[in-house]
Parts: sequence; C-alpha cells; structure tokens
Amino acid sequence: MPASEQDFLDSINRHFPNTGPGIALGRGDDCAIIDQAGPLCLSTDLFVEHAHFRRSYFTPQDIGHKALAAAASDLAAMGAAPVGFALSLVLPAATGPTAVDDAFLDALLSGMAALSSRLALPLIGGDLSAGPTLALDITVLGRPGTSGRLLRRCMAQPGDALVVIGPFGLARVGLLALEIAGRTAVETWPDATNAHLRPEPRLSEGQTLAGFPAVRGLMDVSDGLARDLPRFLGSDAARNAAPLGAELSITAEALHPEVRAFCAARGADPVAEAVLGGEDYALLAAVDPAGLAAVLAALTDTLTDTLPGALVIGSVTATPGLRLNGRPFTKAGFDHFG
Amino acid sequence: MPASEQDFLDSINRHFPNTGPGIALGRGDDCAIIDQAGPLCLSTDLFVEHAHFRRSYFTPQDIGHKALAAAASDLAAMGAAPVGFALSLVLPAATGPTAVDDAFLDALLSGMAALSSRLALPLIGGDLSAGPTLALDITVLGRPGTSGRLLRRCMAQPGDALVVIGPFGLARVGLLALEIAGRTAVETWPDATNAHLRPEPRLSEGQTLAGFPAVRGLMDVSDGLARDLPRFLGSDAARNAAPLGAELSITAEALHPEVRAFCAARGADPVAEAVLGGEDYALLAAVDPAGLAAVLAALTDTLTDTLPGALVIGSVTATPGLRLNGRPFTKAGFDHFG
Repeated sequence: MPASEQDFLDSINRHFPNTGPGIALGRGDDCAIIDQAGPLCLSTDLFVEHAHFRRSYFTPQDIGHKALAAAASDLAAMGAAPVGFALSLVLPAATGPTAVDDAFLDALLSGMAALSSRLALPLIGGDLSAGPTLALDITVLGRPGTSGRLLRRCMAQPGDALVVIGPFGLARVGLLALEIAGRTAVETWPDATNAHLRPEPRLSEGQTLAGFPAVRGLMDVSDGLARDLPRFLGSDAARNAAPLGAELSITAEALHPEVRAFCAARGADPVAEAVLGGEDYALLAAVDPAGLAAVLAALTDTLTDTLPGALVIGSVTATPGLRLNGRPFTKAGFDHFG
Repeated sequence: MPASEQDFLDSINRHFPNTGPGIALGRGDDCAIIDQAGPLCLSTDLFVEHAHFRRSYFTPQDIGHKALAAAASDLAAMGAAPVGFALSLVLPAATGPTAVDDAFLDALLSGMAALSSRLALPLIGGDLSAGPTLALDITVLGRPGTSGRLLRRCMAQPGDALVVIGPFGLARVGLLALEIAGRTAVETWPDATNAHLRPEPRLSEGQTLAGFPAVRGLMDVSDGLARDLPRFLGSDAARNAAPLGAELSITAEALHPEVRAFCAARGADPVAEAVLGGEDYALLAAVDPAGLAAVLAALTDTLTDTLPGALVIGSVTATPGLRLNGRPFTKAGFDHFG
C-alpha cells in the first residue's frame, strides 16, 4: 500500500500514458471521456488473491499481466478492437503477513503496463482502496474493428463448424503443475505454466474472425470447453432459437505436447482433461462450413503460436448436449464458485 | 456467497432488468454493447468493508445504495446523464465470522436496484468472486444530457463564484455519530446519518448545471471541500492555466442544523468541520458571476432537499491557497489512505 493516494497516482502515471485514440479526457477528472463513433462494448473481470491467483507462484508482473489479459480477452471474444480500461486495486498494508510494498506494486503495474502498451489498450481510470487481500477489478472498453461487427454467443446454427483458436487444456495443466510443485514448475512445464500465468488475449484473431460473415458467433473459453460450450450453444430468445448441442472429435495428437506428457505421467485422459481445462482464453467460433476454409487460412496468417493454433473440434448439432468422440460428455468444467 | 454462479445470476436477474435506452446488448454475453450517439464518460469506485463501510451500522440495503450512489455521483459531477453500470462483487463465504448469506445479498441487491431504477441507470455487466471481505467495485457510464456538455474540473477563472449544491459537512457528522453510538445514531441524528448511509447522487442538478454556459467547471465533493477545492482549482496544462485559490465566506447559519448541533455539543467549530467533511457527494460549481442569478434560480427548481440547497461559498482567486472567513485554511480533509 503506498503511503498516500498521490504516491499511488504518481506510480500509475510513471507506468501508463494518459492518452489514446478516441480518449477525449483521460485519468484525473471525475470521469474519463471516450469519444468514439459507433457502439462500444464493455466487460468487467475480478482477479482476487486465493480465488484466482497465488503470490507463491505468480510474480507481481504475472499478476498485473493476467488481470488485464483475462479482462481484455472478453473484448477479443466480441471481435472488438481495444479502447481503454479502468483498474480498481484493493491493496493490503505495506507491512504484515499480506504486505504489498512499493516494489511489489511497481512490478505489478509494470507487468500490466507492458500488456496495456502492446495491446494499445490505455488505462483511463480506476480507484484504490486498502483491504485485507490483494484484489484487482478491471473494466475494459472496446469498439468494432474495421469489419464493423461485434460477435455474440448463441448465434450458431446446426451444422456449423466449431473452431478453437489457441491451445486448450494447457493452462489447466499449468495450474495443476504450479499447485503441485510451486514456481519450479515453470522449468518443467514452460508452455503450460506460461499459459496459466501469462495468457494472451487474442484481440487480433478476434478482429480477423469478425471480418468473415461466415463466423456467426464467438466467445472466449475461460471456464473450459465443457462449461463454456453449453453457454455458446444456449437458447437465444431474440431469435426464438432453441439450445443446440455439439458433436466433438478431438484426438490427443491435436493437443499441446505438454498436455499429453502431463496426462501420460498421471494416467489421465488428455482429451477429457483438455475439454475440462479452464483459463486458456482461447477463442471458440461457430463457422458456416461454406466459409470455413477461408477463415482457417486467415487465422494461419495471424497466429503466431505453435500448434494447435486454430483447430476444428467438431460441429453444432440440433440435439442439445455434448458428445465427445462418439460418447456423451457431461462432466462439468472448472467452477470458481463450486 | 451464493451456492453457485447460476444462483447469483438468478438473484441479479430478479432485481435488475436487463435493458435500457442505448443498451444494444445487456448482461450475459462476453461484453455488453452500448450504442449511443456521441461521447461517453466513465468512472469507477470501490466500496470496501472496513475502508468505506461497517456492517455494524450499515444495513445491507444501505451498502447496496451507497456503493452505487458514490459511483453515480461521478456522473453527476460531469453533468452527465446515466447510461449504465457494471458491478463487481467480492463476497465472503455463507458461513463463518464474515458470512454473507443469501438474505443479506438479496437485501444488498434490493437497495442497489431501488437506486438503479430511480436513477434510470441499468446494470449491464459485472463479475463475482469469493474473498475474505465484502467489497464492491462499480463502473458507471454516462453521456451528455440535452445540453450536449460534459463539465470538467480545473476550468474555473478568477472571480468565478463557487457554488455548493447540497448539504456539506453533514455526512461527516453522520459518520462520527455512527462511529460513537452505532446504528442508534440514526434516531438522534436522522439527516446526518442518512447523508452518510444513503447519499443522493445529484444527477438531475448536474445536468441542469451543464445547461448553463456560465457554469465553467464542476466536480463532486467526495473527500471534503478542504481536499477537493485544490483539485478543482488546480492547474490545467491544456489551457496553460496556473493553479488558482479561493476566498471562502461561510457562516454557521448556512449549515445544516444537525451540523451546528453536533459541533455545539462537542465545542467544535461547525464551519471548519463542514469544510473538512467528506462523503457528502455535494456538487461544487465554478460559475461566471454574470450568469450566477440564473443558475441559482434554476437550481431552486430542481432541489428537493431542505436547506442549505445551493449555497454560494465564495469566489475564485488568482492567488493559490484557500482562505476561509478571512484566514488561511490549510488543514487536510479526510484521506482514505492516511
């Protein structure tokens, strides 16, 4: 906890520029003013110690990065371009067992500022309070990209291809490895721990997808495919559309090698674990099969990750429920509230 | 803490409609979509147990009301009209010493929903997490009202009249009385405790003020005049303007009777206490003297409070620093971080 509110604002100002495209007034007044033509989209994400992260294996930079990455992923999930974000910080005192000192805060802000700069997502507001546990709440604002579209859930149609953009199941393996071994898991499982500690919001891929009318719906997979697919395929009152289902076909070979290796060492089914896995912030798209090839080709251009990149994991069915490799799949994904 | 995320969402949906003017897509997708012509303004406010409120004398309804009122006051401070808000809730478990059970949460949401409905400020998003202490973070969005103007700080000019809209010092008296006597202070000091527990965001008055070009600048007084006036009169780099000062002239007779009575009983100077007092969420305007009479007449039409309503407390000086009734006034107001 900084000694004064002004010390905190000085730290913020050292790390974050106070301007951005479409930002008519930045931080420091009662409100920021956003002056954009057209619609805006907004999402809010909490990132709370013990519920979402542990200081024992998150560096302060990781905490700053992941809080912003998880929030920004909701913009990617709409196919939106970044506008700005607000940060609310609850900070424990500078001494005591849960201390957050100036060096820790500085490192946290530097991790967040690096991602903010890279995403062109400026900090336009926020608040600070003392509190017993480190907690961050981030509100992101976006706008349609050059396509003019914002993509929603519950827009899929039977027969659509389901495409996952980015590895899935990898962050869950990272979480398990970090819980077992602590920070040293970073050496053993570099990609998996990185997926958990430093997820990448796929803003560029989201905007690419919004440019294809064949992409009917989009979301980000934050709670695992098993939990998020039913949300993606849910009923849509506005279109009088019934809930849909999915027939998934996923082989272990399509998964990240660290998912396969981690599961092999524990006798677990890597495909089932990957479908359960949360916090990957992969994108999940429903794509008209007639346009699928063009969409996949465009994603290959923008994806910089190693395999599996964009993966067709199955297709949408008129019958509700999930089937995985020919069998019903009902096991629930990760529930923060369970 | 509700048993599941779905239980929580069901509670939210019982209390808050999911539509509003200019809201193209409400809660439930990755983002809400706001489709308004023209600029938007945004502010974020934390409301954290022990730092901002105590459950010993706040009812759950008070907590829900005040968290939203304090955030919405930042819209009033811009002269903005309401668009929507997002709510992030950190909730302790349903059992144990800091328990938040379903009845408590329901009452909290009902207090917030009543104000949300009255202000026409719909809930368009948010997040939920477990945590050790009850904490709320609210992000509000507004737009210019019919005047088309949004009012800023640091726009005053020497000679401008300083006008406070709403009682000031009253919430501080309420806080002190509640800290001394607990909830029973509500009977002894009804207006003061109400000012602390149930502040009223002055959205209507803010929009009225924005309609007068003579009103050059506006803010809300959340940390007390002694702390907020220097912020209001600070330098403005964009206009190459130096920091200003103020010559205040405030008599005890202009203050709320409960401020006078509380201070009289303790041998305190009511004017000094009122200038220190925070959390009133009164508005502070800088008004060109040529237009002052018309502004005050218009405020009389919209103010429904008892005295002091709108009060001219002094004028802006080219010399920095505050003078109160002919003497320098330097004592700091309430600092949440001190």
